[in-house]
Amino acid sequence: MNKYWSASIRGLAPYVPGEQPKGGRVIKLNTNECPYPPSPAALEAVRAQATADLRLYPDPDGSHLKAAIAAHYGREPAEVFLGNGSDEVLAHAFLGLLKQSRPLLFPDITYSFYPVYCALYGIAYESVPLGADFQVEVDDYARPNGGIILPNPNAPTGRGLALADIERLLAAHPDVVVVVDEAYVDFGAASAVPLIARHPNLLVVQTFSKSRALAGLRVGFALGDANLVAALETVKGCFNSYPLDRVALAAAEAALRDQAWFEQTCERIVASRERLAGALAARGFEVLPSQANFLFARHPAYAGAALQAALRERGVLVRHFARPRIADFLRITIGTEDECRELVAALDAILA
Amino acid sequence: MNKYWSASIRGLAPYVPGEQPKGGRVIKLNTNECPYPPSPAALEAVRAQATADLRLYPDPDGSHLKAAIAAHYGREPAEVFLGNGSDEVLAHAFLGLLKQSRPLLFPDITYSFYPVYCALYGIAYESVPLGADFQVEVDDYARPNGGIILPNPNAPTGRGLALADIERLLAAHPDVVVVVDEAYVDFGAASAVPLIARHPNLLVVQTFSKSRALAGLRVGFALGDANLVAALETVKGCFNSYPLDRVALAAAEAALRDQAWFEQTCERIVASRERLAGALAARGFEVLPSQANFLFARHPAYAGAALQAALRERGVLVRHFARPRIADFLRITIGTEDECRELVAALDAILA
Repeated sequence: MNKYWSASIRGLAPYVPGEQPKGGRVIKLNTNECPYPPSPAALEAVRAQATADLRLYPDPDGSHLKAAIAAHYGREPAEVFLGNGSDEVLAHAFLGLLKQSRPLLFPDITYSFYPVYCALYGIAYESVPLGADFQVEVDDYARPNGGIILPNPNAPTGRGLALADIERLLAAHPDVVVVVDEAYVDFGAASAVPLIARHPNLLVVQTFSKSRALAGLRVGFALGDANLVAALETVKGCFNSYPLDRVALAAAEAALRDQAWFEQTCERIVASRERLAGALAARGFEVLPSQANFLFARHPAYAGAALQAALRERGVLVRHFARPRIADFLRITIGTEDECRELVAALDAILA
Repeated sequence: MNKYWSASIRGLAPYVPGEQPKGGRVIKLNTNECPYPPSPAALEAVRAQATADLRLYPDPDGSHLKAAIAAHYGREPAEVFLGNGSDEVLAHAFLGLLKQSRPLLFPDITYSFYPVYCALYGIAYESVPLGADFQVEVDDYARPNGGIILPNPNAPTGRGLALADIERLLAAHPDVVVVVDEAYVDFGAASAVPLIARHPNLLVVQTFSKSRALAGLRVGFALGDANLVAALETVKGCFNSYPLDRVALAAAEAALRDQAWFEQTCERIVASRERLAGALAARGFEVLPSQANFLFARHPAYAGAALQAALRERGVLVRHFARPRIADFLRITIGTEDECRELVAALDAILA
């Protein structure tokens, strides 16, 4: 029946995002959204865009937002790329930079969209196993490759990688692009942005969806050498001239300028994370050390899928991945303090 | 210097969108935006989205908007695909449906993004010359092909194609997908949507950017057999789970429901188009018959590029394409009545 489909898309299996419930009261700890609202300045920027000017196309270059990001991170606007969420940024990076004759490398346990991009664009890849403690071992990447991508902190483990390790990786692979996916970096890991000046093969990808609480607006960006950014701009210019709308551009810029709100949000989440990690450990969970806005944890007496289902019955959504090595883990987004308490209460009822 | 670039993107030449001036007073008739504001209901929907819920991802399926579009056009939600502007819809259609072993066919004079998508995805194509009067001749497509795409009305000519011609094309090519790009259909051409029930190879692409005055929000969609939509969903699911943000989804739905505003907007633009066509003809222009929100016109005594530059000096932006057969034409977006008058006054000053 799919005689009309291009041969290249037959058999593709899309990425499956976490559930977005459409009604009812749930404790939503399944998609790593921020439990706190975006900056009031961002909300005001949304309202301010509700004018007749919505009839006009946005600035295709997003030059105001690029300039703000460049200033914030101490880089040049030509070193900034904008996309419709960091997923679009990643998609363009896979096609424009990571599609090479040698295989792309990434961890065996990582963001599950990476192999999907590889399938979409026909990119060969090899997965590199995490260490026994679920840590990225950069020396294991010393094999022929056409590029490397890894999140820092990694997802869904939450484990961060030291900047010295990332720099060692960059120095060991100067002829290929190394993408560091920093969607969760603001919750405690060290950003690789300071390494851009010394490493023309480094692309850092970030998002407004987590620490700046704008998942609903779809704004991601990359920072890297202007030559790498030019590759992404080439793909973007052949795909969609205006991927960011007027509202998203304005709200992201306002959010970026509200540094106090950003810092307070991150601090609250980090504090809740540490409290929740302690509460889970006290109940017998093995909890991986996390530098993200989520915890990755397993209980010795419960299968991951069963525990996820039991939580769901009690109105708490968490994420479970039915994959080797991690099938007994749950990925639990850090909620508000109240949400964390309700999660723990639900666990107590289940484990009793 | 681009050793880091994938071989597949070296040499790509991006689509060049019309200029988006960043300040100063200009009469902007260069990117086919709507001269009138979006529905007040759409603006209210934008404001209503400025809440803490922006911290949450949008509905990845856009199910409310899909249901509204399906109801509006008398189709099923499974026959509706949503994208970040119709350009993203088209991109996914090129990769998922139009990339075949036989060449894709489209007019030699048409939307200049089509050959860019072909280059991006490695799609072979052949261009089919328009007739002497710049009309699409459907019988000229009777050659081996892997798919057909054409705008109705065509851009940048503005000429519409009769529904009987489109149906003849569909019936003559039942084994390949025929994409009808209806970005401008609401200004007087007949939509092919009623043909979907009889032709499983038909994909109709539309946008909220023109007749619904929401270019700033980036919402496009396709209607077609559920099998074709499933192909687009597969590509989308491998590329970006949430291409439409919460604000765009809500505003588009509100705009779609304000039928009176939509009809009034289209009627005003069509009336202005007819007046402006008359004024241009009275000044010696050859004006192609248009069913779009723009005119395509040339003056026997002036080169297109020179006339565009002269208008620009007087603060009027129009679009010019330095391409064979049409290098002496200008594509002039229909503005407000005042803008049309200022254009004519500027032309009078230049032609005097």
